[in-house]
Amino acid sequence: MDYYYGPGRNHLFVPGPVNIPEQVLRAMNRNNEDYRSPAIPAMTKSLLEDVKKIFKTTSGTPFLFPTTGTGAWESALTNTLSPGDRTVSFLIGQFSLLWIDQQQRLGFNVDVVESDWGQGANLEILASKLAEDTTHTIKAVCIVHNETATGVTNNLATVRKILDHYQHPALLLVDGVSSICALDFRMDEWGVDVALTGSQKALSLPTGLGIVCASPKALEASKTAKSVRVFFDWKDYLKFYNMGSYWPYTPSIQLLYGLRAALDLIFEEGLDNVIARHTRLAKATRLAVEAWGLKNCTQKDEWFSDTVTAVVVPPYIESSEVVKRAWKRYNLSLGLGLNKVAGKVFRIGHLGNLNELQLLGCLAGVEMILKDVGYPVQLGSGVAAASAYLQNSMPMIPSRI
Amino acid sequence: MDYYYGPGRNHLFVPGPVNIPEQVLRAMNRNNEDYRSPAIPAMTKSLLEDVKKIFKTTSGTPFLFPTTGTGAWESALTNTLSPGDRTVSFLIGQFSLLWIDQQQRLGFNVDVVESDWGQGANLEILASKLAEDTTHTIKAVCIVHNETATGVTNNLATVRKILDHYQHPALLLVDGVSSICALDFRMDEWGVDVALTGSQKALSLPTGLGIVCASPKALEASKTAKSVRVFFDWKDYLKFYNMGSYWPYTPSIQLLYGLRAALDLIFEEGLDNVIARHTRLAKATRLAVEAWGLKNCTQKDEWFSDTVTAVVVPPYIESSEVVKRAWKRYNLSLGLGLNKVAGKVFRIGHLGNLNELQLLGCLAGVEMILKDVGYPVQLGSGVAAASAYLQNSMPMIPSRI
Amino acid sequence: MDYYYGPGRNHLFVPGPVNIPEQVLRAMNRNNEDYRSPAIPAMTKSLLEDVKKIFKTTSGTPFLFPTTGTGAWESALTNTLSPGDRTVSFLIGQFSLLWIDQQQRLGFNVDVVESDWGQGANLEILASKLAEDTTHTIKAVCIVHNETATGVTNNLATVRKILDHYQHPALLLVDGVSSICALDFRMDEWGVDVALTGSQKALSLPTGLGIVCASPKALEASKTAKSVRVFFDWKDYLKFYNMGSYWPYTPSIQLLYGLRAALDLIFEEGLDNVIARHTRLAKATRLAVEAWGLKNCTQKDEWFSDTVTAVVVPPYIESSEVVKRAWKRYNLSLGLGLNKVAGKVFRIGHLGNLNELQLLGCLAGVEMILKDVGYPVQLGSGVAAASAYLQNSMPMIPSRI
Amino acid sequence: MDYYYGPGRNHLFVPGPVNIPEQVLRAMNRNNEDYRSPAIPAMTKSLLEDVKKIFKTTSGTPFLFPTTGTGAWESALTNTLSPGDRTVSFLIGQFSLLWIDQQQRLGFNVDVVESDWGQGANLEILASKLAEDTTHTIKAVCIVHNETATGVTNNLATVRKILDHYQHPALLLVDGVSSICALDFRMDEWGVDVALTGSQKALSLPTGLGIVCASPKALEASKTAKSVRVFFDWKDYLKFYNMGSYWPYTPSIQLLYGLRAALDLIFEEGLDNVIARHTRLAKATRLAVEAWGLKNCTQKDEWFSDTVTAVVVPPYIESSEVVKRAWKRYNLSLGLGLNKVAGKVFRIGHLGNLNELQLLGCLAGVEMILKDVGYPVQLGSGVAAASAYLQNSMPMIPSRI
Repeated sequence: MDYYYGPGRNHLFVPGPVNIPEQVLRAMNRNNEDYRSPAIPAMTKSLLEDVKKIFKTTSGTPFLFPTTGTGAWESALTNTLSPGDRTVSFLIGQFSLLWIDQQQRLGFNVDVVESDWGQGANLEILASKLAEDTTHTIKAVCIVHNETATGVTNNLATVRKILDHYQHPALLLVDGVSSICALDFRMDEWGVDVALTGSQKALSLPTGLGIVCASPKALEASKTAKSVRVFFDWKDYLKFYNMGSYWPYTPSIQLLYGLRAALDLIFEEGLDNVIARHTRLAKATRLAVEAWGLKNCTQKDEWFSDTVTAVVVPPYIESSEVVKRAWKRYNLSLGLGLNKVAGKVFRIGHLGNLNELQLLGCLAGVEMILKDVGYPVQLGSGVAAASAYLQNSMPMIPSRI
Repeated sequence: MDYYYGPGRNHLFVPGPVNIPEQVLRAMNRNNEDYRSPAIPAMTKSLLEDVKKIFKTTSGTPFLFPTTGTGAWESALTNTLSPGDRTVSFLIGQFSLLWIDQQQRLGFNVDVVESDWGQGANLEILASKLAEDTTHTIKAVCIVHNETATGVTNNLATVRKILDHYQHPALLLVDGVSSICALDFRMDEWGVDVALTGSQKALSLPTGLGIVCASPKALEASKTAKSVRVFFDWKDYLKFYNMGSYWPYTPSIQLLYGLRAALDLIFEEGLDNVIARHTRLAKATRLAVEAWGLKNCTQKDEWFSDTVTAVVVPPYIESSEVVKRAWKRYNLSLGLGLNKVAGKVFRIGHLGNLNELQLLGCLAGVEMILKDVGYPVQLGSGVAAASAYLQNSMPMIPSRI
Repeated sequence: MDYYYGPGRNHLFVPGPVNIPEQVLRAMNRNNEDYRSPAIPAMTKSLLEDVKKIFKTTSGTPFLFPTTGTGAWESALTNTLSPGDRTVSFLIGQFSLLWIDQQQRLGFNVDVVESDWGQGANLEILASKLAEDTTHTIKAVCIVHNETATGVTNNLATVRKILDHYQHPALLLVDGVSSICALDFRMDEWGVDVALTGSQKALSLPTGLGIVCASPKALEASKTAKSVRVFFDWKDYLKFYNMGSYWPYTPSIQLLYGLRAALDLIFEEGLDNVIARHTRLAKATRLAVEAWGLKNCTQKDEWFSDTVTAVVVPPYIESSEVVKRAWKRYNLSLGLGLNKVAGKVFRIGHLGNLNELQLLGCLAGVEMILKDVGYPVQLGSGVAAASAYLQNSMPMIPSRI
Repeated sequence: MDYYYGPGRNHLFVPGPVNIPEQVLRAMNRNNEDYRSPAIPAMTKSLLEDVKKIFKTTSGTPFLFPTTGTGAWESALTNTLSPGDRTVSFLIGQFSLLWIDQQQRLGFNVDVVESDWGQGANLEILASKLAEDTTHTIKAVCIVHNETATGVTNNLATVRKILDHYQHPALLLVDGVSSICALDFRMDEWGVDVALTGSQKALSLPTGLGIVCASPKALEASKTAKSVRVFFDWKDYLKFYNMGSYWPYTPSIQLLYGLRAALDLIFEEGLDNVIARHTRLAKATRLAVEAWGLKNCTQKDEWFSDTVTAVVVPPYIESSEVVKRAWKRYNLSLGLGLNKVAGKVFRIGHLGNLNELQLLGCLAGVEMILKDVGYPVQLGSGVAAASAYLQNSMPMIPSRI
């Protein structure tokens, strides 16, 4: 039944779905259960409480939708907005593009702020739009925290500052799919109204949970938002939260136990340690790219993503060939370039439950592949740069000494 | 982390989620994979081809949504209908009620045909409505094949006959959540336009796949249907089907391999043998209920469900007490009575990958619980009636002799 | 690759290997590890400490051999005895026969005390042999606590009393393979010198650990015992225990984690509750056998085994036909009659991590099979008798009310 | 319950137990079964047939003992030799030492031929001993194919040539624990009489199977060999082979299914491809060691092991510190130096189901650790040397292009 992959483990370095820790696989290795027995609501209660921690919120209300990130987007939008509402949305890569497409198809009036792919959201334009919008026609600012297609991280703290500066009441809706649990994310501090992620990203679970967290202001907005919704409606969840049974329809028992195990692992390592680890692995990756003489798709340091690095290949190389060879020859899974950067970049995902040697194995593989496809890389150069940094930056926490 | 359940296996007899076979658990015990590698599209292609067999369709187009049955409902409706469209919908229990509620919230003009809970859809009223509808204002007939709350199975062949009799072009949308893969279901023969099920029912998988199958007529309707939809839009899937990459967003790798294993098991047993097994186990259950002197919630034999039996308890017993004791004392999971029949019925789910002795263990448990709660049942009576039938009706297929 | 077993779960009622709880399967679902890292010795230390509890010993020294019960026998004998040493050994069934055969092949002078199969050890003969043995030529009394072939449990307290009465220094070696963790077993109180069991019995693990526990007197004897041994030598283990690395050769990482989970489950239920559960399930089984009008192979109540019941079939039935049909028709695994009782008995194993409804499902299956093979059983009669008892004897512990 | 290991996967590079492929973990994720049902003998039959292929024998008889390599040694010796028999045995490292110790404790007259640790067996001395032994007092030549402690592979073809040259009838007993399934091994061609391995080595399974294969000459010898044995006796197995039930005592169901999956993987890759892969990964490892300026413990190229490389550290470094840091800081498991080479070498195991990038990740880790402990290694140097070789030697088989 299985495709033949060759010997040894697959090296999974796409920016999602990511590697699942053994502890999580074990927790999920179980039969179904009646979700109406006392056990599942008790566990759900603990999950909802703990999920708030990864959003860094105490006032938010989380929802665990049996869906993907795309569904989580839809939940965020339809619960807070009405058809025709004006949103400001930043187009900086494939995933922000898809979200904008969704916003348009859901009937919103999307004010698209476009940047070159490789740049972050143009916040000056945001400022000017807010400044002009004295009648508050803008109902929501929609921004992807980390654009997975280009490896660009937007500065949410600045977005909040601009909104506050203009005392603008627009909701702040954030796609944190490839950021939450990996990058610093502060829902309450940054005044994010809806934040969302997917289980298969930094949480290191299988696909299947779209995790959405709503601020009190967003919940309030949901009472009057006229977008048509049923499956993604927060109202049904809130009703079952109040009843203490939590689920308006059948959840995945396995993903609930998996989420429990994933959160336990994250809290055991410490959420801030998890984020610091992502910072280190990402820095190491960028140093390798530099050592290879290649360019990062991200155009300025301030936008560097700590979860995915998009590497620009020279014009005489087709980046999809890199990805194809990685898989076939080395059992290494890299991300393709998408849409505008198709053929021009390949992507290394370095998010989720990963460690130094896994990353170095990946980088060693990329070096061989680059040589395979005709790029004159010096083998070992990227690994040397990355490992020099990794060794020196190794945290001196007790369990690692 | 786990709730304490006492020794031994849980006896899972709710009508979903149901027991997962070991073969399926094994297939799902795996790390994530890049869903854009050649392996996953190749497997998806085989799954889409094979999934059609469980709908008994050759002309239908299946979609594997990462969602639940509720989401599958929404997909069926929003892809084929426009706001304000008139549907005829049968209210015969909690799940048909929820679907009707969804239809109303999605903005359709729902013509509700209500029956007593315990009865099937009133097809005479359907006939009269169709007869009157000479201008074809009815755009869809929505019917739950098997109402899980009351154990009532509707006769879809008759629905088709009536539609044909009046040469009415309304679409026929069928909730097959607790029927497909367990009851006889013939999408093509019965002219079903959209049929849907969920992975956690007769397919015996975890929750997480909403499987929707669309007839050519439904696909055609989707081109003009104006309901707002993005996540549940067939169009995006069809685009990716054409590209050969199949997935507009990240699927659950584990559920795909699980579905492969589940289908393999069903085809190994033979779909018709699977259905015949459900018939036998259901008949045995009803004989036990009769032997206990209790009534089936289903009011006529023609509506008896072969996937779930709702048992009416005497007025002096609270049925939720039966369910509670089953779980706490005997590690047996039974279904609660819902809504109108809350407190009055408990439900035995006998669908999915089950065999005779599992069912008899359940029935023996129910007998003890009934006695526990004060009903004067004769212990062993239900088991005797059920096993006498099971023994005599045992199929003489080679692997079972 | 797999044999086709038909739908649903296998009902495993052989007296070993027994059903593995999901919690244990999960714990074992893991990659290998370096057994010389700090983690494995730390876990081993906790296991050795906790394993003593299931033997009810504080003074004993446990050994976890990567072997089966047969290997554990060999370890018990060769570490404590020298070639030519006289043992008194009771032949009461197939497993005591095999142990005696081993004793003879290992070069001991075995004084066999035979009983009819279905009777317990003849302790009067033991008394007379000890009385005569004023020069202490008897070096060890070897006794199977629970003869798995006939469902006979010997009274070890009485054996100890007799040894004490004659102040005889013979070692008391006990095969507890199908008793420990299921029957009341008191190593220290009964002065057992070597007790042993296998992981696939009441511990509910896979086969692979032969667990041997030695009294201080047995350890002392091992210093002078001249039987040739290397793999099974306690000395090598003791050396590594002292070094704190615990393992003279590579253990199964998976079984260690599995044992940890199995012990945790037993302690969570409470060892005495586990034993009481075995008593209840066994009593229920015997009541069913009585209701069927069949005889227990065990000839007196005092010898009834609470882990396995050997059921005598009428002369016109071949018991292996019962076992064969159970497997092929009902996915039920029963134990064959062995050697002298081949064809005459079939065995129901009711040990390990089991609950009431699992047993009742099995009994319902046996009834159908008995009818299949021509025995005029009244269907439901055994289930009725068993469930009446089970219901009344249900313990009122908080988690079960 | 689990020790905390930090994030990401453990990098397991001890020379056993080795990484278990996901396919094998999946196959083993199952409940127990009755080993006396028709399914298990049918599978056992296929396993015994297929196991012969990994020994490259058609005339040999394999035995699957529920034991470890140490037990397999004991089985090889006790079934073919009698107490007092003279063996010629080569002492070249810790594992040959342990085997010699076992031979002595089992009562054989061991003629030890010692070499410096780091050298292979001294075959000139073997020749002279055989030449002198005109009365054939030497009953067996015992040799470790691959000494795991020093990374030394002995030349078995030469051993056979020498035996043939002197027409000496001594049995040739070979410990293939860290060679079979990884190094070229030809039981029939080299006239090996007993060969053995353990499941946790190149077969990439958990510990628990000691696999022994006996030539017809060895089987013949077993009929008269007087060494005491029961658990390890081939006779009992042969009796059950003839009966078609195969097992004298309970096997591990999980390991049987695991072995089935492991063999399937090996045959899918092709045994010769598996061996060639080990050759490549080992060569790459040695090139890295050379690039680091360190010495291989193995003193001549002809003895280089393709399954384990023992790396000599400079005198001012304690090699156990390398191993300790590897585990604590980098989640990398390396092998300690044992006995005579304790503190002087650390070992990289590169056997089993591994691929290029896994090895390169390990090598990158070793570089960092060497620097951590004060050795002036140039980071990236070993990875560069290894990856240059690996890239160029990549086989052009269809699945890898």
